[in-house]
Amino acid sequence: MSYSYLSHLDCPQCGLTYEPDSVQQLCSCGSPLLVRYKLNEAREQWSRESLNRRKPDLWRYHELLPVRNPAYTVTLGEGMTPLVKLPRLGKDYGIAELYMKDESLVPSGSFKARGAAVGISRAKELGVQKLAMPTNGNAGAAWALYAARAGIEATIVMPKDAPIITRSEVALAGANLYLVNGLISDAGKIVGQAVADMGLYDASTLKEPYRIEGKKTMGIEIAEQLDWEMPDVILYPTGGGVGLIGIYKALQELAEIGWVQGKLPRLVAVQAEGCAPIVRAWEEKKEYSDFWEDSVTSAFGINVPKAIGDFLVLKAVYETEGKAVAVSEAEIVAEQEKVARLEGSFICPEGAAAFAAARKLSLEGWIKQGEKVIVLNTGAGIKYPDTVQVNPPLLEIGERIPSDTTSRSTH
Amino acid sequence: MSYSYLSHLDCPQCGLTYEPDSVQQLCSCGSPLLVRYKLNEAREQWSRESLNRRKPDLWRYHELLPVRNPAYTVTLGEGMTPLVKLPRLGKDYGIAELYMKDESLVPSGSFKARGAAVGISRAKELGVQKLAMPTNGNAGAAWALYAARAGIEATIVMPKDAPIITRSEVALAGANLYLVNGLISDAGKIVGQAVADMGLYDASTLKEPYRIEGKKTMGIEIAEQLDWEMPDVILYPTGGGVGLIGIYKALQELAEIGWVQGKLPRLVAVQAEGCAPIVRAWEEKKEYSDFWEDSVTSAFGINVPKAIGDFLVLKAVYETEGKAVAVSEAEIVAEQEKVARLEGSFICPEGAAAFAAARKLSLEGWIKQGEKVIVLNTGAGIKYPDTVQVNPPLLEIGERIPSDTTSRSTH
Repeated sequence: MSYSYLSHLDCPQCGLTYEPDSVQQLCSCGSPLLVRYKLNEAREQWSRESLNRRKPDLWRYHELLPVRNPAYTVTLGEGMTPLVKLPRLGKDYGIAELYMKDESLVPSGSFKARGAAVGISRAKELGVQKLAMPTNGNAGAAWALYAARAGIEATIVMPKDAPIITRSEVALAGANLYLVNGLISDAGKIVGQAVADMGLYDASTLKEPYRIEGKKTMGIEIAEQLDWEMPDVILYPTGGGVGLIGIYKALQELAEIGWVQGKLPRLVAVQAEGCAPIVRAWEEKKEYSDFWEDSVTSAFGINVPKAIGDFLVLKAVYETEGKAVAVSEAEIVAEQEKVARLEGSFICPEGAAAFAAARKLSLEGWIKQGEKVIVLNTGAGIKYPDTVQVNPPLLEIGERIPSDTTSRSTH
Repeated sequence: MSYSYLSHLDCPQCGLTYEPDSVQQLCSCGSPLLVRYKLNEAREQWSRESLNRRKPDLWRYHELLPVRNPAYTVTLGEGMTPLVKLPRLGKDYGIAELYMKDESLVPSGSFKARGAAVGISRAKELGVQKLAMPTNGNAGAAWALYAARAGIEATIVMPKDAPIITRSEVALAGANLYLVNGLISDAGKIVGQAVADMGLYDASTLKEPYRIEGKKTMGIEIAEQLDWEMPDVILYPTGGGVGLIGIYKALQELAEIGWVQGKLPRLVAVQAEGCAPIVRAWEEKKEYSDFWEDSVTSAFGINVPKAIGDFLVLKAVYETEGKAVAVSEAEIVAEQEKVARLEGSFICPEGAAAFAAARKLSLEGWIKQGEKVIVLNTGAGIKYPDTVQVNPPLLEIGERIPSDTTSRSTH
């Protein structure tokens, strides 16, 4: 029994392989590298029953994670988030088996903590002392916080329009924080230059191979939470797309070690109409996406005009007979309210986009009667205070609530 | 085997007992009521091993919760939050065995979700359709959200200075929201009047007996996470004090059913110097606290000038040979930063108060070498954006990060 069945890294573009126990960034061909495991050994030696005695966090799957020595694990208890059944919303959509995988319940309030926990742990194991990354906010917050716990120095660059609270998270963690008067793609260029100038570890999306390994645990958890039965459809709000790539990778690995059987779920990449490069590529049946000019959406985490892993996202969608769907800003806002009113969950705008897509695809009949559907809510709505406008009445001390108030119906 | 061993309600002041299967608020003597269980039956019939196969949420302890029929359970997957070891902070404090019970990882980002989940579930089981409550923000947010999922109409009154984001949570959930130009005690009076005027269910702190049952699961979880060994000290930021009362109740119940042995941990009630009625009462060895005039603290959740359950808090502190401690605003701010820099966790100001108290008590020698210490972080720092001031440099597109940046050390 190994703690990790880590084997090597390989390139999904040119097929080159790399040994994993020193720092590797992109392949020499420019593609992201993927982590590979000795799945045959895992299949023979590891059993689902071993999980019963383990803590409810993502490290319960350490055999399929890249950290070799548990002493390097940097954890704040992330993972095993709830898979919540949503009967009232499901009725509204016409989806009897509707579930939310609720990624607001992780440190820093977004699913980015998964990638940060595994990415930082592995960076620590490899001896990294300084890293840099561009971010739309939440990833930078998560990486800055885990880096602090690991004693790694982080430099974070984010668009000035990224959620304000993520600045506080980065700064409080003691990281070096810069804003850029542009988009994440502009932040990426600044980080690239800094990496070259100062010899930093480049923790940009998919420029190190381990973040995806953290994200893939969402897929393993969904499988475990459904008792190792596959759902029919998984909807995922897609910016860089690492979560979707990770979920696909997880389910393939689980199939290979024999823990799940049958057809993989159809994976749906959801984007905003104001930034939908993956959707356009999918509609045109292309392998890669084009840079989306003048992108804009309130779902800031998916404002990614060109993702380095676009071809991996599109491959996952094509191979599972999934779909790429864009939703409007109005649909996002409306769906965020709907989920709160019917199910009591204050989801983030990115999650709301995925829910809006589920509604649409059910209406269109693409999601069929009786299918089991999982929607990823990638973070906490409380990180986006400006998405909700509130003007409650102000009472003076001793004043009464007008008695017709409670005749206002809940929706 | 019963789903719940619920027996009856009793009054800790006058001893009167009540049947639990209709709506009960305070005792006729004005005291809060406590929920009692058939602990002898539970002791005989229920085993710790039964937990192994259950989901990692607070409902795994349903035998000691008041909901009789699981069909009425309103859950978003709350509970079984991480118990995180903090080695670097512990070193700084001189506490080798320092742990954080991290209550930021629950729906709505604060431990109030526990009380709301159990309180709302039981209210639904009892047929409640409309409720009202005063709040310092987070409890109102949690109750509004769970009420929405339950289809119960909620009216929430909060001070205008309560965390702004909690307004959004309440409003988005579709509840009736009022601000008051005063403190939670003023909000409480307005709610009292509304309850009388409109015949609402009064969900104020300890005015219904079930919120405490949700909060007590923190105590059960701590015990389970420590393999049913008691810690030595638990520090809890104390406003209304329900969590501390609940943890004490939980540990007593666990001792009675034989799941834990030995001395209960010393319970420490932590308050802010600007609002420390429990601390003053404890110093004067009193049974009750006096109303704290002109209370003020940035740790808004513990700005409670007079708690209805003060005598229960003080009893728990006296009986466990615990302590009540006040910390300054400066200590709160400094400790929030320290926890982020050393351990990568962005805790709330109330949690920071409890950490500051741990530091103090270790320095004073009240916490001794080798003792196992648990600090409650009651919520996510991201709900309090104003506690951190950040002014990061703004770069233009294509600009470089100055190369001396990363010489800045992390603290």
